[in-house]
Amino acid sequence: MNNTYFSSADIIQMETRYRAAFINSLTGFKSASLIGTADKMGNVNLAIFSSVFHLGSNPALIGFINRPDSVDRHTLDNILETNVYTINHIDKNIFRQAHQTSARYPKDISEFEATGLTPEYIDAFKAPFVKESPLKIGLELAERHDLSINGTILVIGKILHVTLPESCMNTDGFVNIENAGSITISGLDTYHTTQKLARLSYAKPDKNITEID
Amino acid sequence: MNNTYFSSADIIQMETRYRAAFINSLTGFKSASLIGTADKMGNVNLAIFSSVFHLGSNPALIGFINRPDSVDRHTLDNILETNVYTINHIDKNIFRQAHQTSARYPKDISEFEATGLTPEYIDAFKAPFVKESPLKIGLELAERHDLSINGTILVIGKILHVTLPESCMNTDGFVNIENAGSITISGLDTYHTTQKLARLSYAKPDKNITEID
Repeated sequence: MNNTYFSSADIIQMETRYRAAFINSLTGFKSASLIGTADKMGNVNLAIFSSVFHLGSNPALIGFINRPDSVDRHTLDNILETNVYTINHIDKNIFRQAHQTSARYPKDISEFEATGLTPEYIDAFKAPFVKESPLKIGLELAERHDLSINGTILVIGKILHVTLPESCMNTDGFVNIENAGSITISGLDTYHTTQKLARLSYAKPDKNITEID
Repeated sequence: MNNTYFSSADIIQMETRYRAAFINSLTGFKSASLIGTADKMGNVNLAIFSSVFHLGSNPALIGFINRPDSVDRHTLDNILETNVYTINHIDKNIFRQAHQTSARYPKDISEFEATGLTPEYIDAFKAPFVKESPLKIGLELAERHDLSINGTILVIGKILHVTLPESCMNTDGFVNIENAGSITISGLDTYHTTQKLARLSYAKPDKNITEID
């Protein structure tokens, strides 16, 4: 394949939407999540995020990036009000509704109602899960970092609740999210299913890796 | 499918490796990258990361999480010495070598040599790219955030150089990374190719989304 090259000067000169599509493509495949929140009055909000990432296993922490000037705003406002939120995987059955949550609905409109997804609750936990999602996580706000470089906010949560299909649990703790139906995002707007190549053994300097499972 | 539930108390009680495999699976599919660095003497290092994420398009910024107590250490040390690094996508031809870079090689061993990957340079830019990688990004350290909650470090870089297959560039800036061959990671050690479901139009409250391309 012939390669093409872009310098930082080329990137600065790109038209705004072109640059957004381009730069958002460069970081590879992303997690596809719906973040569910509620305000103090119980008004619910649901928004798609592709910036959810693993931060640590002990304590069990997840991070995501909240943009300041967007529909993400309701998500952060609600988390700051109630201290809790949910992260729900997206599968091929709900990716169109999930994408639709990125529309700029007014705050008094529930994206659950607008897109036909169903809020679901665990006991007294105030944030709504997505009933149709295959893998659901309930979190408590743990730390917030304002990233001065571009005004985005890193939100870190501690995992309190996890619900997933029993058949996807491996005996060593690995969760087969491909079998759960979780999908992945590239760029701003492209959705992909996955096909497993291999699970590889723990790497050591003088040992050949092998396939496991 | 029958669901199974885990509380935070269940998670705390998990055996360490079981918990690492479990929690690392929960955040969905991840980017698969090799980060290339060099120290002041030009000794090169290469390490696999699944925590690379999009931070912003203008300025064009990428973040990744560096664990403090691991083989990632050489990566951060080198970035602090030379201020630059590369992010290289992993495809199905190099994922075994990429995985092998996670072995704890001593600092004087080049993971390029140990795994059979080839360093490649652009002009005076000091960090090595991976010749075999389909999509390569050269970055300059822009900001570092120490996350006190678990001792991890958020490294933020500004994009200086991008090289990718010409045939994967869409006219609107989107890069077709699936066609480039980029793959994705789940959990700690499982590699997947992707298959596009759809690219969806920009969502608006009172408009149906459509497929684009």
